[in-house]
Amino acid sequence: MKQVLVDMDGVLADVYRQFQLYEERETGKQINLEQLVGILELDAFPNGKKHVTSEGFFRTAPVIDGSIEGLKYLNEKYNVLIVSSATEFPQSLTEKVDWLHEHFPFISWKQIILCGEKKSIRGDIMIDDHPKNLDFFEGKKIIFSQPHNGLLKSDQYKRVNSWQDVMSVL
Amino acid sequence: MKQVLVDMDGVLADVYRQFQLYEERETGKQINLEQLVGILELDAFPNGKKHVTSEGFFRTAPVIDGSIEGLKYLNEKYNVLIVSSATEFPQSLTEKVDWLHEHFPFISWKQIILCGEKKSIRGDIMIDDHPKNLDFFEGKKIIFSQPHNGLLKSDQYKRVNSWQDVMSVL
Repeated sequence: MKQVLVDMDGVLADVYRQFQLYEERETGKQINLEQLVGILELDAFPNGKKHVTSEGFFRTAPVIDGSIEGLKYLNEKYNVLIVSSATEFPQSLTEKVDWLHEHFPFISWKQIILCGEKKSIRGDIMIDDHPKNLDFFEGKKIIFSQPHNGLLKSDQYKRVNSWQDVMSVL
Repeated sequence: MKQVLVDMDGVLADVYRQFQLYEERETGKQINLEQLVGILELDAFPNGKKHVTSEGFFRTAPVIDGSIEGLKYLNEKYNVLIVSSATEFPQSLTEKVDWLHEHFPFISWKQIILCGEKKSIRGDIMIDDHPKNLDFFEGKKIIFSQPHNGLLKSDQYKRVNSWQDVMSVL
């Protein structure tokens, strides 16, 4: 059975929506995603660096549309590992696993890897929104569309725009 | 540069000492390590399962003798990754990274992996006290002596009894 590495932020967790909500709560201003194309998340939101280290940010993140059904599908067909860059923000670690248990209860703790860098994780297929993770990966690379990677054109990756897309590709 | 995977519990963190301290605090009884040879940690300590899920258990664990000097030595000579089975106990995750930052400040967040199972982590050398982790590993296997693995005799692993031993082997 092939092993699929599935990213969390930007693939399962809707961190853009969460940044928007936090920003609006703090400043009263709405930030439009169209103006953030090609900019990394933490540079795109004025208070992003503060919010990403604040308690509850990851624990209360919205779930990306279709990801529950999509991950269930993958989990029946592949060895799924959830692989998230998370050790940079220690407070996020417990929150991320609690969040996974709440929204994706069919994913066991044995299937979760929280790391700094992903280049030492083995797999056949990787679904990620960040080229920096995909570029070190030896298997099939699937890039999940998010504003920050919107300008990227590359034959290196298969682009998917939704979990519907993921299910039709895999 | 070769990549060395270094376990936390039983290699860097003295979880036996921590279990003994928690047990004594709870029951007033001292538990002798000699009587625990060949028994897995959570079966060896009467209240182990309760203590391992309690707040602060991992955050306040004592450091294994010689591990700071030993890990510093490895970190200059190898690509070191700290790889810990931790997602079974979500509360341990943030505690473990905070603990590493306190006692091993020369280890970056980029060098930390917290997982359920270690079999998808790539490396050349693994230092671990649990055969279940070493058995799936393809590189050089170094078993760090702890009471639970005391009865194990195998040519599959190089046994080390201390961080002094680690430094003379690597």
